[in-house]
Amino acid sequence: MYTAEIISVGTELLLGDILNTNERFLSRELASMGIAVIHRSTVGDNRGRLAEEIKNALGRSDILILSGGLGPTPDDLTKEVCCEVLGCELVEDKEQAAFIKAYFNKKGMQMPQSNLKQAMLPVGGIVLKNDHGTAPGAAIEKDGRCVVFLPGPPRELEPMFKDYVKPILQKYSDGVIISHSIRTMGIGESAMAELVGDLTEGENPTVAPYAKDGEALLRVTARAVNTDEAEKISAPVIKEIKRRLGGYVYGVDYESIQQRVVELLRDNGKKLAIAESCTAGYTAKRLTEISGSSEVFECGIVSYSNRIKVKLLGVSEATLDQYGAVSEQTAKEMAEGVRKAGGADIGVSVTGIAGPGTDGTGKPAGLIYIALSDGSMTLVEKLETGRVSDREYNRYISASRVLNMVRKYLEKTF
Amino acid sequence: MYTAEIISVGTELLLGDILNTNERFLSRELASMGIAVIHRSTVGDNRGRLAEEIKNALGRSDILILSGGLGPTPDDLTKEVCCEVLGCELVEDKEQAAFIKAYFNKKGMQMPQSNLKQAMLPVGGIVLKNDHGTAPGAAIEKDGRCVVFLPGPPRELEPMFKDYVKPILQKYSDGVIISHSIRTMGIGESAMAELVGDLTEGENPTVAPYAKDGEALLRVTARAVNTDEAEKISAPVIKEIKRRLGGYVYGVDYESIQQRVVELLRDNGKKLAIAESCTAGYTAKRLTEISGSSEVFECGIVSYSNRIKVKLLGVSEATLDQYGAVSEQTAKEMAEGVRKAGGADIGVSVTGIAGPGTDGTGKPAGLIYIALSDGSMTLVEKLETGRVSDREYNRYISASRVLNMVRKYLEKTF
Repeated sequence: MYTAEIISVGTELLLGDILNTNERFLSRELASMGIAVIHRSTVGDNRGRLAEEIKNALGRSDILILSGGLGPTPDDLTKEVCCEVLGCELVEDKEQAAFIKAYFNKKGMQMPQSNLKQAMLPVGGIVLKNDHGTAPGAAIEKDGRCVVFLPGPPRELEPMFKDYVKPILQKYSDGVIISHSIRTMGIGESAMAELVGDLTEGENPTVAPYAKDGEALLRVTARAVNTDEAEKISAPVIKEIKRRLGGYVYGVDYESIQQRVVELLRDNGKKLAIAESCTAGYTAKRLTEISGSSEVFECGIVSYSNRIKVKLLGVSEATLDQYGAVSEQTAKEMAEGVRKAGGADIGVSVTGIAGPGTDGTGKPAGLIYIALSDGSMTLVEKLETGRVSDREYNRYISASRVLNMVRKYLEKTF
Repeated sequence: MYTAEIISVGTELLLGDILNTNERFLSRELASMGIAVIHRSTVGDNRGRLAEEIKNALGRSDILILSGGLGPTPDDLTKEVCCEVLGCELVEDKEQAAFIKAYFNKKGMQMPQSNLKQAMLPVGGIVLKNDHGTAPGAAIEKDGRCVVFLPGPPRELEPMFKDYVKPILQKYSDGVIISHSIRTMGIGESAMAELVGDLTEGENPTVAPYAKDGEALLRVTARAVNTDEAEKISAPVIKEIKRRLGGYVYGVDYESIQQRVVELLRDNGKKLAIAESCTAGYTAKRLTEISGSSEVFECGIVSYSNRIKVKLLGVSEATLDQYGAVSEQTAKEMAEGVRKAGGADIGVSVTGIAGPGTDGTGKPAGLIYIALSDGSMTLVEKLETGRVSDREYNRYISASRVLNMVRKYLEKTF
């Protein structure tokens, strides 16, 4: 099995200014290719320590991936130091220089001279195009080792790795490892463990539970000589998990609940309208992360005050007076109101107290009502997160639950 | 200045199963104490590589913090390997053994024998109580160096560090380090470097540029014997940077542009209404991340289709026919429309093509128009991000620019 290491470069990382998510991304990608990551390290923008780290890594591993330090400033040393250690020369790559100039021109800006430094690339290396920024990456194969430079921002690093580095590393890949994620909503991690705990003891495939942002997911990972073989040993385990978890499962290998919801709406030929109070656009924002959501979504109304709930959603003042804005009754009227205002098939709503602190009515932060109306019936759900000071969590979970309510309604599993 | 390193131990980290947030937490805590983290690394549950890493670290740094590998299984090697390297002995700590037993009893469980391994602690070390789990930590001071073991789970590590490790490390703390972030919007990293590049050459305070999510920021970091002194040497540099960057600066030590916008709206006693097409709630969601935003924001309308732009925002069909949904004219009518619909002082709007791919009109993805109306005048801005396939970026940047337009309008720097 080939071995790899990852070196992250940047003083801002050592100061804790930035959470390093690249290491994990690269570790997972390499693991999925059957390449063993045996060491990761982070060094600052410091010539001596970076050189030492590179030398140590090349003494231990077949593949070295460096991220960060490809910027235009004098602090950015990764390519220079690494090429010194490897005994490579850096020269200006005309094509990349032109690309960087064009990048600035397209934005109506003059390219600062310093950016040309980013076009300096190792002689004999493979240039890795940056489709999301100005700094190209590079890969150098020398003495049976492969050294790869990637830009630091995850938005640039991740697609560059997937699109250009993986094909280069394919020859170091030893068999395959494939993973499938079974995603659920509405069940906690420990309740899930009770239903499928025995399945997590297998060795191939392995089944591992993860909790993330209020969702529990199970990752099924199989290792085999080829993809077909790996799929064959995974399939019965996935089937059994789905059987046991039933309606909690919203999909296998879906990116998000919103992906499933857009698909269901499209398959059913239904349009959704969304009324939001405490989430204030978060639900609509998440639904429209899905390209093509415009086919199923036209109208969202953020009614952050009672006045707007009455004016734009037709919530009755009597309801607000009697039950308050955060109530089952208001949620129902909001859902029906937005369905009508948007001329949609289904209206959903959310009203709650995101926190921190209460709204002065004595109701606790983390209390949320969500509702769905299709014109002939209304569903309503009450949620108490118990997290009185976690505004972001309360808003995120509320939006998730609204989306999940649409899913369950369309799957008829409500 | 004392130096520190962090070693994270665990094969699950190298597989990418877990995002390592301990490194960042420890880095920030140490930086704030004036201790320089010069290196971080992650190794698996591997005796030889862990020993090598510990030796290297002790050869470079005064303080070594190890996290993870304190569990009850044979995989958990951190204490054993480190004590071997240091030449310390491990013995059972009676008090901790009793504590671990009591921990299980309290949960109505029998303690597995293997858990007693967690009570094995270095002779002459300081025991660090675990208030959130079973594995105690430890600190050993030897030959002028300090080695600290901490459990891996952040929920256990973070309070243990704050409550028990910080007091021990106090004697290595060498004055204070304070940082201020000068946040800008509308200027690129390299253009900023040209305006303030000479200031980044200073040693105390240091000035370092960072780019993040389409924003450029400058971090000014000063080191001194106390906070007053550190502030005194930072102040003139911050002042000079603000003078040079002028209206690009939206604040010092602000968390986000939305924080500044809510503050400005409140100070000016103005209410904002937001109409969103391509961002579909992202702007409203970000504004309402700020607790207290309900004072200045009541109404958002997500008009994802032309029909809703006409119906709820009063955009004229003639405008849509002649100029299209993604146009200066539509943006203006949306801003004015939402201002009226929401009964607000200021209406803002955004309409554009988030991508990937175009909307069939021949206009490119990444083309965005934003507008602001106060009832007597309208501002409009055209943005071309050039990122045709980066939906999330286009949406995020669009929302940022809407918020920045409100800021500039209220600061009268437009």
